[in-house]
Amino acid sequence: MANKGLLVVFSGPSGAGKGTLLKALLAKDRNIRLSVSATTRSPRPGEVNGREYHFISQEKFSEMAAAGEMLESAEYCGNCYGTPAAPIERWTSEGKDVILEIEVQGGAQVKRKRPDSVGIFILPPSLKVLEQRLRKRGTETDEVVRERLAAARREIPEAARYDYAVVDDTVERAVEQIRAILEAEKCRTRRNGPLMERILNHD
Amino acid sequence: MANKGLLVVFSGPSGAGKGTLLKALLAKDRNIRLSVSATTRSPRPGEVNGREYHFISQEKFSEMAAAGEMLESAEYCGNCYGTPAAPIERWTSEGKDVILEIEVQGGAQVKRKRPDSVGIFILPPSLKVLEQRLRKRGTETDEVVRERLAAARREIPEAARYDYAVVDDTVERAVEQIRAILEAEKCRTRRNGPLMERILNHD
Repeated sequence: MANKGLLVVFSGPSGAGKGTLLKALLAKDRNIRLSVSATTRSPRPGEVNGREYHFISQEKFSEMAAAGEMLESAEYCGNCYGTPAAPIERWTSEGKDVILEIEVQGGAQVKRKRPDSVGIFILPPSLKVLEQRLRKRGTETDEVVRERLAAARREIPEAARYDYAVVDDTVERAVEQIRAILEAEKCRTRRNGPLMERILNHD
Repeated sequence: MANKGLLVVFSGPSGAGKGTLLKALLAKDRNIRLSVSATTRSPRPGEVNGREYHFISQEKFSEMAAAGEMLESAEYCGNCYGTPAAPIERWTSEGKDVILEIEVQGGAQVKRKRPDSVGIFILPPSLKVLEQRLRKRGTETDEVVRERLAAARREIPEAARYDYAVVDDTVERAVEQIRAILEAEKCRTRRNGPLMERILNHD
Protein backbone atom coordinates (compact mmCIF):
# COMPACT_ATOMS: atom_id res chain seq x y z
CA MET A 1 0.00 0.00 0.00
CA ALA A 2 2.89 2.36 0.78
CA ASN A 3 3.92 4.34 -2.26
CA LYS A 4 7.57 4.65 -1.30
CA GLY A 5 9.79 1.70 -2.10
CA LEU A 6 11.57 -0.29 0.59
CA LEU A 7 15.25 -0.24 1.40
CA VAL A 8 16.20 -3.88 1.99
CA VAL A 9 19.49 -5.02 3.49
CA PHE A 10 20.55 -8.51 2.50
CA SER A 11 23.31 -10.26 4.44
CA GLY A 12 24.47 -13.76 5.14
CA PRO A 13 27.57 -15.91 5.12
CA SER A 14 29.47 -16.36 1.88
CA GLY A 15 28.22 -19.52 0.19
CA ALA A 16 24.73 -19.30 1.72
CA GLY A 17 23.43 -18.65 -1.78
CA LYS A 18 22.73 -14.90 -1.73
CA GLY A 19 23.83 -14.39 -5.33
CA THR A 20 21.61 -17.12 -6.78
CA LEU A 21 18.67 -15.94 -4.66
CA LEU A 22 19.06 -12.34 -5.77
CA LYS A 23 19.17 -13.34 -9.41
CA ALA A 24 15.97 -15.39 -9.05
CA LEU A 25 14.30 -12.60 -7.10
CA LEU A 26 15.16 -9.94 -9.68
CA ALA A 27 13.83 -12.18 -12.45
CA LYS A 28 10.49 -12.51 -10.63
CA ASP A 29 9.99 -9.00 -9.38
CA ARG A 30 10.48 -6.14 -11.82
CA ASN A 31 10.03 -3.57 -9.08
CA ILE A 32 13.37 -4.37 -7.45
CA ARG A 33 16.62 -2.51 -8.03
CA LEU A 34 20.05 -3.65 -6.86
CA SER A 35 22.28 -1.10 -5.17
CA VAL A 36 25.79 -0.99 -6.64
CA SER A 37 28.60 -0.22 -4.21
CA ALA A 38 31.39 2.25 -4.87
CA THR A 39 35.00 1.21 -4.36
CA THR A 40 38.45 2.68 -4.70
CA ARG A 41 40.02 -0.61 -5.78
CA SER A 42 40.85 -1.22 -9.44
CA PRO A 43 38.45 -3.16 -11.62
CA ARG A 44 39.38 -6.81 -12.14
CA PRO A 45 39.26 -8.34 -15.62
CA GLY A 46 35.65 -8.65 -16.71
CA GLU A 47 34.28 -6.19 -14.16
CA VAL A 48 32.26 -3.35 -15.62
CA ASN A 49 32.03 0.09 -14.04
CA GLY A 50 28.50 0.57 -12.67
CA ARG A 51 27.71 -3.16 -12.76
CA GLU A 52 29.93 -4.91 -10.18
CA TYR A 53 31.00 -1.61 -8.63
CA HIS A 54 31.22 2.08 -9.27
CA PHE A 55 34.99 2.42 -9.54
CA ILE A 56 35.94 5.81 -8.16
CA SER A 57 39.10 7.56 -6.99
CA GLN A 58 40.15 7.80 -3.36
CA GLU A 59 39.66 11.57 -3.60
CA LYS A 60 36.10 11.24 -4.88
CA PHE A 61 35.33 8.59 -2.22
CA SER A 62 36.60 10.78 0.63
CA GLU A 63 34.65 13.72 -0.75
CA MET A 64 31.41 11.73 -0.90
CA ALA A 65 31.91 10.22 2.57
CA ALA A 66 32.64 13.67 4.06
CA ALA A 67 29.49 15.07 2.41
CA GLY A 68 27.38 12.29 3.97
CA GLU A 69 26.70 10.82 0.56
CA MET A 70 27.59 7.27 1.64
CA LEU A 71 24.95 5.30 3.51
CA GLU A 72 27.68 3.04 4.91
CA SER A 73 31.36 2.54 4.21
CA ALA A 74 34.27 0.34 5.22
CA GLU A 75 37.94 -0.19 4.48
CA TYR A 76 39.13 -3.62 3.44
CA CYS A 77 42.66 -4.58 2.38
CA GLY A 78 43.55 -0.93 1.94
CA ASN A 79 40.60 -0.14 -0.32
CA CYS A 80 37.43 1.76 0.50
CA TYR A 81 33.96 0.39 -0.16
CA GLY A 82 30.69 2.23 0.32
CA THR A 83 27.03 2.54 -0.61
CA PRO A 84 26.10 5.76 -2.42
CA ALA A 85 22.89 7.13 -0.90
CA ALA A 86 21.63 9.07 -3.93
CA PRO A 87 20.45 6.20 -6.19
CA ILE A 88 18.68 4.60 -3.22
CA GLU A 89 16.85 7.84 -2.50
CA ARG A 90 15.86 8.23 -6.13
CA TRP A 91 14.66 4.65 -6.62
CA THR A 92 12.71 4.37 -3.37
CA SER A 93 10.99 7.71 -4.02
CA GLU A 94 9.95 6.27 -7.40
CA GLY A 95 8.38 3.33 -5.55
CA LYS A 96 11.11 0.81 -6.40
CA ASP A 97 12.38 -1.56 -3.72
CA VAL A 98 16.15 -1.37 -3.45
CA ILE A 99 18.26 -4.29 -2.27
CA LEU A 100 21.63 -3.74 -0.68
CA GLU A 101 23.79 -6.83 -0.44
CA ILE A 102 26.36 -6.08 2.25
CA GLU A 103 28.16 -7.74 5.14
CA VAL A 104 26.96 -7.48 8.69
CA GLN A 105 29.02 -4.45 9.78
CA GLY A 106 27.66 -2.45 6.84
CA GLY A 107 24.18 -3.75 7.60
CA ALA A 108 24.42 -2.40 11.15
CA GLN A 109 25.47 1.03 9.83
CA VAL A 110 22.49 1.13 7.46
CA LYS A 111 20.04 0.10 10.20
CA ARG A 112 21.30 2.94 12.42
CA LYS A 113 20.93 5.55 9.68
CA ARG A 114 17.72 4.14 8.20
CA PRO A 115 15.72 2.39 10.93
CA ASP A 116 12.93 2.02 8.38
CA SER A 117 15.11 -0.32 6.30
CA VAL A 118 14.23 -4.01 6.24
CA GLY A 119 17.01 -6.41 7.23
CA ILE A 120 16.95 -9.94 5.81
CA PHE A 121 19.59 -12.46 6.80
CA ILE A 122 20.06 -15.43 4.49
CA LEU A 123 20.90 -18.61 6.38
CA PRO A 124 22.25 -21.87 5.00
CA PRO A 125 20.12 -24.87 6.04
CA SER A 126 23.10 -26.09 8.08
CA LEU A 127 26.86 -25.59 8.30
CA LYS A 128 27.29 -28.96 6.62
CA VAL A 129 25.26 -27.83 3.59
CA LEU A 130 27.20 -24.55 3.55
CA GLU A 131 30.46 -26.51 3.41
CA GLN A 132 29.13 -28.70 0.59
CA ARG A 133 28.10 -25.61 -1.38
CA LEU A 134 31.50 -23.98 -0.89
CA ARG A 135 33.27 -27.15 -2.03
CA LYS A 136 30.99 -27.65 -5.00
CA ARG A 137 32.12 -24.32 -6.43
CA GLY A 138 35.41 -26.10 -6.98
CA THR A 139 37.26 -22.79 -6.95
CA GLU A 140 38.11 -22.63 -3.26
CA THR A 141 41.06 -24.29 -1.59
CA ASP A 142 40.54 -26.29 1.61
CA GLU A 143 41.97 -23.41 3.56
CA VAL A 144 39.54 -20.91 2.05
CA VAL A 145 36.61 -23.25 2.77
CA ARG A 146 37.73 -23.55 6.40
CA GLU A 147 38.04 -19.75 6.68
CA ARG A 148 34.59 -19.25 5.18
CA LEU A 149 33.06 -21.74 7.62
CA ALA A 150 34.74 -20.02 10.55
CA ALA A 151 33.43 -16.69 9.27
CA ALA A 152 29.91 -18.18 8.96
CA ARG A 153 30.05 -19.29 12.60
CA ARG A 154 30.89 -15.71 13.58
CA GLU A 155 28.28 -14.15 11.29
CA ILE A 156 25.22 -16.33 11.89
CA PRO A 157 24.64 -15.05 15.46
CA GLU A 158 24.47 -11.54 13.90
CA ALA A 159 21.25 -12.66 12.19
CA ALA A 160 19.46 -11.73 15.42
CA ARG A 161 20.01 -8.05 14.58
CA TYR A 162 18.12 -8.44 11.34
CA ASP A 163 14.34 -8.26 11.08
CA TYR A 164 13.97 -11.51 9.18
CA ALA A 165 15.87 -14.72 8.58
CA VAL A 166 15.30 -16.78 5.47
CA VAL A 167 16.77 -20.25 5.14
CA ASP A 168 18.09 -20.82 1.66
CA ASP A 169 16.90 -24.39 1.40
CA THR A 170 15.40 -24.33 -2.08
CA VAL A 171 15.70 -21.16 -4.16
CA GLU A 172 11.97 -21.17 -5.01
CA ARG A 173 10.89 -21.34 -1.38
CA ALA A 174 13.37 -18.70 -0.26
CA VAL A 175 12.35 -16.32 -3.07
CA GLU A 176 8.71 -16.82 -2.09
CA GLN A 177 9.50 -15.93 1.52
CA ILE A 178 11.47 -12.83 0.53
CA ARG A 179 8.62 -11.66 -1.69
CA ALA A 180 6.17 -12.23 1.18
CA ILE A 181 8.40 -10.14 3.44
CA LEU A 182 8.43 -7.24 0.96
CA GLU A 183 4.66 -7.46 0.51
CA ALA A 184 4.04 -7.62 4.27
CA GLU A 185 6.39 -4.73 5.03
CA LYS A 186 4.38 -2.53 2.67
CA CYS A 187 1.30 -3.24 4.80
CA ARG A 188 3.00 -2.11 8.04
CA THR A 189 0.87 0.55 9.67
CA ARG A 190 3.94 2.61 10.49
CA ARG A 191 4.58 2.98 6.75
CA ASN A 192 0.93 3.81 6.03
CA GLY A 193 0.03 6.85 8.10
CA PRO A 194 -0.90 8.87 4.98
CA LEU A 195 -3.15 6.07 3.73
CA MET A 196 -5.21 6.04 6.92
CA GLU A 197 -5.47 9.83 6.79
CA ARG A 198 -6.69 9.62 3.22
CA ILE A 199 -9.37 7.08 4.02
CA LEU A 200 -10.65 9.19 6.90
CA ASN A 201 -10.54 12.54 5.15
CA HIS A 202 -11.79 11.70 1.68
CA ASP A 203 -15.02 10.04 2.76
CA MET B 1 10.27 -21.35 9.70
CA ALA B 2 8.97 -21.04 13.26
CA ASN B 3 7.27 -24.21 14.40
CA LYS B 4 4.76 -22.51 16.67
CA GLY B 5 1.67 -21.09 15.01
CA LEU B 6 0.85 -17.39 15.06
CA LEU B 7 -1.82 -15.66 17.08
CA VAL B 8 -3.40 -13.13 14.71
CA VAL B 9 -5.76 -10.38 15.78
CA PHE B 10 -8.13 -9.19 13.09
CA SER B 11 -10.04 -5.95 13.56
CA GLY B 12 -11.69 -3.32 11.43
CA PRO B 13 -14.93 -1.39 11.09
CA SER B 14 -18.16 -3.30 10.57
CA GLY B 15 -18.81 -3.49 6.85
CA ALA B 16 -15.11 -3.38 5.89
CA GLY B 17 -15.48 -6.95 4.72
CA LYS B 18 -13.78 -8.94 7.49
CA GLY B 19 -16.24 -11.84 7.26
CA THR B 20 -15.85 -12.35 3.52
CA LEU B 21 -12.08 -12.04 3.79
CA LEU B 22 -11.87 -14.58 6.58
CA LYS B 23 -13.97 -17.06 4.64
CA ALA B 24 -11.72 -16.71 1.56
CA LEU B 25 -8.60 -16.95 3.73
CA LEU B 26 -9.76 -20.11 5.50
CA ALA B 27 -10.60 -21.70 2.15
CA LYS B 28 -7.04 -21.01 0.89
CA ASP B 29 -5.01 -21.84 3.97
CA ARG B 30 -5.73 -25.08 5.76
CA ASN B 31 -3.31 -24.21 8.54
CA ILE B 32 -5.59 -21.50 9.97
CA ARG B 33 -8.04 -21.94 12.84
CA LEU B 34 -10.67 -19.41 13.87
CA SER B 35 -11.02 -18.60 17.54
CA VAL B 36 -14.62 -18.83 18.79
CA SER B 37 -15.59 -16.38 21.53
CA ALA B 38 -17.51 -17.29 24.66
CA THR B 39 -20.60 -15.33 25.63
CA THR B 40 -23.22 -15.30 28.36
CA ARG B 41 -25.96 -14.12 26.01
CA SER B 42 -28.56 -16.58 24.74
CA PRO B 43 -28.15 -18.16 21.30
CA ARG B 44 -30.22 -16.53 18.54
CA PRO B 45 -32.21 -18.68 16.13
CA GLY B 46 -29.77 -20.49 13.83
CA GLU B 47 -26.74 -19.99 16.04
CA VAL B 48 -24.91 -23.17 16.98
CA ASN B 49 -22.98 -23.62 20.22
CA GLY B 50 -19.26 -23.76 19.41
CA ARG B 51 -19.72 -22.24 15.94
CA GLU B 52 -20.85 -18.62 16.36
CA TYR B 53 -20.06 -18.63 20.09
CA HIS B 54 -19.48 -20.90 23.03
CA PHE B 55 -22.66 -20.17 24.97
CA ILE B 56 -21.82 -20.40 28.65
CA SER B 57 -23.41 -19.37 31.94
CA GLN B 58 -22.51 -16.20 33.80
CA GLU B 59 -21.14 -18.34 36.60
CA LYS B 60 -18.84 -20.27 34.25
CA PHE B 61 -17.74 -17.04 32.56
CA SER B 62 -16.82 -15.37 35.87
CA GLU B 63 -14.98 -18.50 36.95
CA MET B 64 -12.92 -18.62 33.75
CA ALA B 65 -12.16 -14.89 33.85
CA ALA B 66 -11.06 -15.12 37.49
CA ALA B 67 -8.80 -18.08 36.68
CA GLY B 68 -7.12 -16.07 33.89
CA GLU B 69 -8.58 -18.37 31.26
CA MET B 70 -9.84 -15.50 29.10
CA LEU B 71 -7.34 -13.77 26.85
CA GLU B 72 -9.61 -10.73 26.70
CA SER B 73 -13.14 -9.98 27.77
CA ALA B 74 -15.75 -7.23 27.66
CA GLU B 75 -19.30 -6.49 28.70
CA TYR B 76 -21.76 -5.33 26.09
CA CYS B 77 -25.49 -4.69 26.61
CA GLY B 78 -25.39 -6.57 29.90
CA ASN B 79 -23.75 -9.69 28.43
CA CYS B 80 -20.17 -10.88 28.76
CA TYR B 81 -17.99 -11.77 25.81
CA GLY B 82 -14.52 -13.23 25.96
CA THR B 83 -11.80 -15.22 24.23
CA PRO B 84 -10.94 -18.56 25.88
CA ALA B 85 -7.14 -18.89 25.99
CA ALA B 86 -6.94 -22.71 26.03
CA PRO B 87 -7.85 -23.52 22.40
CA ILE B 88 -5.44 -20.81 21.20
CA GLU B 89 -2.62 -22.32 23.25
CA ARG B 90 -3.38 -25.79 21.94
CA TRP B 91 -3.65 -24.81 18.28
CA THR B 92 -0.57 -22.58 18.18
CA SER B 93 1.52 -25.24 19.91
CA GLU B 94 0.39 -27.62 17.16
CA GLY B 95 1.71 -25.14 14.60
CA LYS B 96 -1.69 -23.82 13.53
CA ASP B 97 -2.20 -20.09 13.02
CA VAL B 98 -5.17 -18.83 15.01
CA ILE B 99 -7.23 -15.84 13.97
CA LEU B 100 -9.13 -13.83 16.50
CA GLU B 101 -11.73 -11.49 15.05
CA ILE B 102 -12.39 -8.89 17.71
CA GLU B 103 -13.02 -5.18 18.11
CA VAL B 104 -10.27 -2.71 18.91
CA GLN B 105 -10.61 -2.70 22.72
CA GLY B 106 -10.28 -6.47 22.81
CA GLY B 107 -7.40 -6.24 20.35
CA ALA B 108 -5.54 -3.89 22.70
CA GLN B 109 -6.04 -6.35 25.60
CA VAL B 110 -4.63 -9.21 23.53
CA LYS B 111 -1.60 -7.18 22.42
CA ARG B 112 -0.79 -6.37 26.05
CA LYS B 113 -1.00 -10.00 27.14
CA ARG B 114 0.57 -11.48 24.02
CA PRO B 115 3.01 -8.95 22.52
CA ASP B 116 4.04 -11.70 20.09
CA SER B 117 0.57 -11.63 18.51
CA VAL B 118 0.19 -10.14 15.04
CA GLY B 119 -2.35 -7.35 14.68
CA ILE B 120 -3.99 -6.83 11.29
CA PHE B 121 -6.47 -4.01 10.77
CA ILE B 122 -8.82 -4.33 7.80
CA LEU B 123 -9.54 -0.99 6.18
CA PRO B 124 -12.28 -0.16 3.68
CA PRO B 125 -10.90 1.53 0.52
CA SER B 126 -12.78 4.68 1.57
CA LEU B 127 -15.65 5.73 3.81
CA LYS B 128 -17.79 6.10 0.68
CA VAL B 129 -17.18 2.47 -0.29
CA LEU B 130 -17.86 1.41 3.30
CA GLU B 131 -21.21 3.21 3.15
CA GLN B 132 -22.08 1.55 -0.17
CA ARG B 133 -21.23 -1.87 1.27
CA LEU B 134 -23.36 -1.28 4.35
CA ARG B 135 -26.30 -0.15 2.21
CA LYS B 136 -25.92 -3.03 -0.23
CA ARG B 137 -26.57 -5.50 2.57
CA GLY B 138 -30.10 -4.11 2.49
CA THR B 139 -30.67 -5.13 6.07
CA GLU B 140 -29.60 -1.92 7.77
CA THR B 141 -31.76 1.14 8.32
CA ASP B 142 -30.42 4.59 7.47
CA GLU B 143 -29.85 5.20 11.12
CA VAL B 144 -27.79 2.04 11.56
CA VAL B 145 -25.69 2.91 8.50
CA ARG B 146 -25.02 6.38 9.95
CA GLU B 147 -24.05 4.85 13.30
CA ARG B 148 -21.72 2.35 11.65
CA LEU B 149 -20.03 5.11 9.65
CA ALA B 150 -19.56 7.19 12.78
CA ALA B 151 -18.10 4.13 14.51
CA ALA B 152 -15.75 3.56 11.56
CA ARG B 153 -14.47 7.15 11.85
CA ARG B 154 -13.66 6.45 15.51
CA GLU B 155 -12.11 3.04 14.86
CA ILE B 156 -9.91 3.71 11.82
CA PRO B 157 -7.39 5.85 13.77
CA GLU B 158 -6.96 2.81 16.07
CA ALA B 159 -5.41 1.00 13.10
CA ALA B 160 -2.13 2.69 14.06
CA ARG B 161 -1.90 0.38 17.09
CA TYR B 162 -1.96 -2.65 14.83
CA ASP B 163 1.12 -4.06 13.14
CA TYR B 164 -0.39 -4.16 9.69
CA ALA B 165 -3.20 -2.53 7.73
CA VAL B 166 -4.78 -4.26 4.77
CA VAL B 167 -7.17 -2.43 2.49
CA ASP B 168 -10.08 -4.62 1.53
CA ASP B 169 -10.23 -3.45 -2.05
CA THR B 170 -10.59 -6.78 -3.84
CA VAL B 171 -10.89 -9.96 -1.74
CA GLU B 172 -8.17 -11.76 -3.76
CA ARG B 173 -5.63 -8.98 -3.26
CA ALA B 174 -6.40 -8.61 0.45
CA VAL B 175 -6.17 -12.38 1.04
CA GLU B 176 -2.82 -12.40 -0.75
CA GLN B 177 -1.54 -9.63 1.49
CA ILE B 178 -2.73 -11.36 4.64
CA ARG B 179 -1.04 -14.60 3.58
CA ALA B 180 2.16 -12.67 2.87
CA ILE B 181 1.96 -11.17 6.37
CA LEU B 182 1.63 -14.61 7.98
CA GLU B 183 4.50 -15.98 5.90
CA ALA B 184 6.74 -12.99 6.67
CA GLU B 185 5.97 -13.09 10.40
CA LYS B 186 7.19 -16.68 10.51
CA CYS B 187 10.54 -15.48 9.16
CA ARG B 188 10.96 -12.86 11.93
CA THR B 189 14.30 -13.43 13.65
CA ARG B 190 12.70 -12.87 17.04
CA ARG B 191 10.54 -15.94 16.44
CA ASN B 192 13.49 -18.00 15.20
CA GLY B 193 16.10 -18.02 17.94
CA PRO B 194 16.00 -21.84 18.17
CA LEU B 195 16.48 -22.18 14.41
CA MET B 196 19.68 -20.13 14.44
CA GLU B 197 20.95 -22.15 17.41
CA ARG B 198 20.23 -25.35 15.52
CA ILE B 199 22.12 -24.24 12.40
CA LEU B 200 25.14 -23.26 14.48
CA ASN B 201 25.21 -26.30 16.73
CA HIS B 202 24.37 -29.11 14.34
CA ASP B 203 27.07 -28.34 11.78
